[in-house]
Amino acid sequence: MNSSNLDADVLVVGGGLAGVRAAAKLKAGGASVLVLEARDRLGGRTYTRSLGGGAFDFGGQFIGPGQPRMYQLIQELGLKTFGTHVFGRRIIELRGKIRTYSGTIPPLGPITLLHLHRALARSGRWSKSIPTADPWNAMDASVLDGLTLEAWQRPPRKSGNVVHRLSDTVVRTIFGADPGEISTLHYLWFVASNGGLMPLVETKGGFQQDRIVGGAQQISERIAATLGRDAVVLNAAARAIRQDENGVTVESAAGTWRARRVIVSIPLAIAGRIAYQPYLPVARDQIHQRVAMGSTVKVFATYERAFWRERGLSGEAVGTSGAISVTFDNTTHDGAVPCLLGFVAGRPARIFGTIPKEQRRAQILDELACLFGAAARKPVHYEEMDWGGERYSGGCPIGNFAPGTLSTFGDALRTPVGRIHWAGTESARQCTGYMEGAVESGDRAAAEVVAAL
Amino acid sequence: MNSSNLDADVLVVGGGLAGVRAAAKLKAGGASVLVLEARDRLGGRTYTRSLGGGAFDFGGQFIGPGQPRMYQLIQELGLKTFGTHVFGRRIIELRGKIRTYSGTIPPLGPITLLHLHRALARSGRWSKSIPTADPWNAMDASVLDGLTLEAWQRPPRKSGNVVHRLSDTVVRTIFGADPGEISTLHYLWFVASNGGLMPLVETKGGFQQDRIVGGAQQISERIAATLGRDAVVLNAAARAIRQDENGVTVESAAGTWRARRVIVSIPLAIAGRIAYQPYLPVARDQIHQRVAMGSTVKVFATYERAFWRERGLSGEAVGTSGAISVTFDNTTHDGAVPCLLGFVAGRPARIFGTIPKEQRRAQILDELACLFGAAARKPVHYEEMDWGGERYSGGCPIGNFAPGTLSTFGDALRTPVGRIHWAGTESARQCTGYMEGAVESGDRAAAEVVAAL
Repeated sequence: MNSSNLDADVLVVGGGLAGVRAAAKLKAGGASVLVLEARDRLGGRTYTRSLGGGAFDFGGQFIGPGQPRMYQLIQELGLKTFGTHVFGRRIIELRGKIRTYSGTIPPLGPITLLHLHRALARSGRWSKSIPTADPWNAMDASVLDGLTLEAWQRPPRKSGNVVHRLSDTVVRTIFGADPGEISTLHYLWFVASNGGLMPLVETKGGFQQDRIVGGAQQISERIAATLGRDAVVLNAAARAIRQDENGVTVESAAGTWRARRVIVSIPLAIAGRIAYQPYLPVARDQIHQRVAMGSTVKVFATYERAFWRERGLSGEAVGTSGAISVTFDNTTHDGAVPCLLGFVAGRPARIFGTIPKEQRRAQILDELACLFGAAARKPVHYEEMDWGGERYSGGCPIGNFAPGTLSTFGDALRTPVGRIHWAGTESARQCTGYMEGAVESGDRAAAEVVAAL
Repeated sequence: MNSSNLDADVLVVGGGLAGVRAAAKLKAGGASVLVLEARDRLGGRTYTRSLGGGAFDFGGQFIGPGQPRMYQLIQELGLKTFGTHVFGRRIIELRGKIRTYSGTIPPLGPITLLHLHRALARSGRWSKSIPTADPWNAMDASVLDGLTLEAWQRPPRKSGNVVHRLSDTVVRTIFGADPGEISTLHYLWFVASNGGLMPLVETKGGFQQDRIVGGAQQISERIAATLGRDAVVLNAAARAIRQDENGVTVESAAGTWRARRVIVSIPLAIAGRIAYQPYLPVARDQIHQRVAMGSTVKVFATYERAFWRERGLSGEAVGTSGAISVTFDNTTHDGAVPCLLGFVAGRPARIFGTIPKEQRRAQILDELACLFGAAARKPVHYEEMDWGGERYSGGCPIGNFAPGTLSTFGDALRTPVGRIHWAGTESARQCTGYMEGAVESGDRAAAEVVAAL
C-alpha cells in the first residue's frame, strides 16, 4: 500500500471509552491513529455535566470489584475514585408501601425471600454453563435464545407477585428493557460475563461500589489527550465506510479519511446506520438490525442538604410502582452538592419520555418525596437525561440482543469484515455492558489490528 | 410556504409498491409528487428477472382471494394473472421420508393430525382477539408480546416432534424467521391481518393462488409510468431528511429535494439508516431498531420439461429436513419455461448463505432430486436470490417485530412525525406483509398527506 495516501494507519469510528482505548493501544503498538467522533465531545455513553457546581455523570458512572481494568486505568490516568454513599437504611417500595432496612436482605416475608433466593440461584446456576467469550456455543444456546426472560421466569406469574415485580425492576435497571424483550441467552450471558447477579445489583462489593471524582467522561478525555495533537476529530459522524484492496475510506460529516484498517466502536444499532461498501455479510448486517438499545432516563435532584442522611437513610431505594426503579445517593465526593439520582428504565422510561417536561419533574419529585420525605420536593436543581433521544447512542445503558440473535448471529459480533474491526462493550468477552467491557473490547480490537497491519 | 422553492408538494422515499401507489394517489389528489428510489429499478421487494427467456419473480410473486386491491390494481394496469400450478400430488418430507398426497390433508398419523389441527385452531382462535389495525390494543397485548412464538407453542416440544417441525417450516417460510425470534403478538396480528392461517399456507384458495403474467415488478413500473415524466429518480438513496417550519428536505445520493411533506416507504430497519433532523421521537427510533428483516433465499431451477408433472406431482412440497422449506411449480404462464421454485428461510437460510456457491447449487439440486426425482439434477438454469444481501431491503419477506416491540412502540408505526408520513406493508392495517398490505399502506399514507396539505 502506498502509505503516503493515508491519513493514518488506523481510523477509529467512535470516541467512546472503547474507541479511545483502542486508539491508545494502537499508538502503543506503533500505529498512527485517528479517532472520528460524531458528537462534539468524547466519552460516548459516559457524559459528565456540571450541576450546581458539582460534576455529575449523566451516563455510566459506577465501577466495582471484578473490574480490574477500570481501576488500573483510573490510576494510570491520575484520577481518583470514591465510594458510593451507602451508610444508613435502604428503602424498598412494594405496592406503594415503603419499608426501610439495613444490610442486604430486604424486609420481605419468608416465602417471598425463598422465591427470590430460588430465582437468583437459578440464574446463577444456569449462567455458569454459558461461555462468556462465545455464548452462542453454550449447550442450550438456541433453546435459551428462543425464550424471552419473561417466559423463562415462569411458571406463570401472577400480576403483583412480589418476586416478579422486584425482578422486573432489577432487569429494567440493568438492561433498560423489560423481561419480555430480552433473550434468556443474552440475560444469562450478561450474568456470566459479569461474574454473577450479585455484582450487578450490589453497591458495596458490587459494580455500583465506586464513582470517579470529577466524573467518568474524564477517562475518555484523558486517554484521548495521550494520543497526541490532531488525533481526534469531533463532529465527524461516519456516514460511509468503503473498503478496497488498498485500504479503507471513512466518509464523515467533517471530511473523508483513509487508512489501512478501521475499528468501528459505536453501538451495534448505530453501526448499522453507516453505509458500507461493499455491503456487509448478512450475519453482520442482521446483528445491526437486532440489538436495540435499552430505554433509560437518569433523573437528578440536587439539594441544599442531604436531608435523607439526617433521617438515617442511605439514599438507596428500590421502587416497583412508580417511574423510578432505583435511586442512589449521588452526592459529589466532597459532599458539596447533595444529590439524589433515580433511574427510570424499560417500559416506565418509554411512558415517562412522552409526558410533558413539567409533569415529569413533578412526578419524579413526588416519588422521591414518597421515598425520602417531603424535603425531596424542593430541589435546588432538577435535571433529566433521556438516552433514547441521543442520536449517536440510540438508547442506554446497553444494546439488548433480541431473541434468536445471539445464538444465530453472535459469531459475527467480533469477526472482522475485511479491513473493518469491531469494538464496543456489547462485543466484550468479559464484563459486557460495562465500562470494563468497553476497555476489554478496545484492547481486543487493537490487538487484532496490530496483528493485521 | 413559498411554493417556488419546492421541487414537489410531496416526496416519496422508496419506489416499492407502497411508495409508487402512494405517489399515484397523491397525484390523483392533485398534489405534485417525486419518487426517490435507492436502486436502479423500481419495485422494492418485487423484482422480476429473465431466466431462460421466461420472466420470474425473484421477490414477491403470489396473490390470492382476500386481496381485492391487488386484483383490481392488476386489472386497472392491464396486467393478467394466472393460477399457480396445483394439479397433481403434493409432497411432504419428514425425517427424510417422502410421502405424496392429494387434497389438503397430508398423510400423517391421526394423533399428529389432531395436534396439527389443535395448533392451527389455537392460532385461529387467539388471532380473532387481535385488532388488525392496532394490535397493541389487544387485551393481552403485552403478555403475548413478551413471549416468543416458540414459548407460546409449548408445552415443551420434543426434538423431532412432527407438528413442531411442520410448524417451524411454515413459520420460516412466511416470516423468514424462526419461532424463537418472533413475538407471539406479531404472529397473531399477522394471522389476523390476513384473515387466518389458511390463506397464508394454501395455494388454491389461499394467498399463493395466482401469479402475474410477466412478473409482479411490472405493477410498480406501470403505476410509476402513470406519474408522468421525471416523477421518479432512480439511484437516489435517501441519506438525510431535514424538517423545518417551512418544509422538508431529502438529501440523497442523487441530489437534494424539497417539498411540503415526505412519505417514507421503505422497510423499518432501512428507514432507521436515514439521518433525521430533528432526531426522531424515541418510540419511532426504537421501532426502527427492533424490526429486523427476515432471512429468505429464493432458489430457481428451470428445466427442459416439467418432469414432475409427468410423474403426477404438482411441484408443491414441504420439506422439514433440508435447506428448502417449501417448493412450488413456478413454470411460466405459457408453459414455455418449466421451473421449480424453492424457499430457503429462517435459520436454514442463514447457514445456506455462508456456504460456497457451487456447494449451495449442489445441495439444492440434491434436495429437489430427493423430492421430485433424479431429473431435477439437470436444470437448464439455476439461480438464487438471497435477500439478506440486499442493502435496500435488509432481508425478506418482511420485518419481524422483536418481542416487546409491537405492544410498546406499535403506535409509532403509522403516527406521522411532523412532515414525515410512513408507508410500507409492515404498517398496513390489512394484509400486513403482503403486496396487498403495501397498497393499503400507500393509500393510507397518501390520504394522510392529502388531508394535511
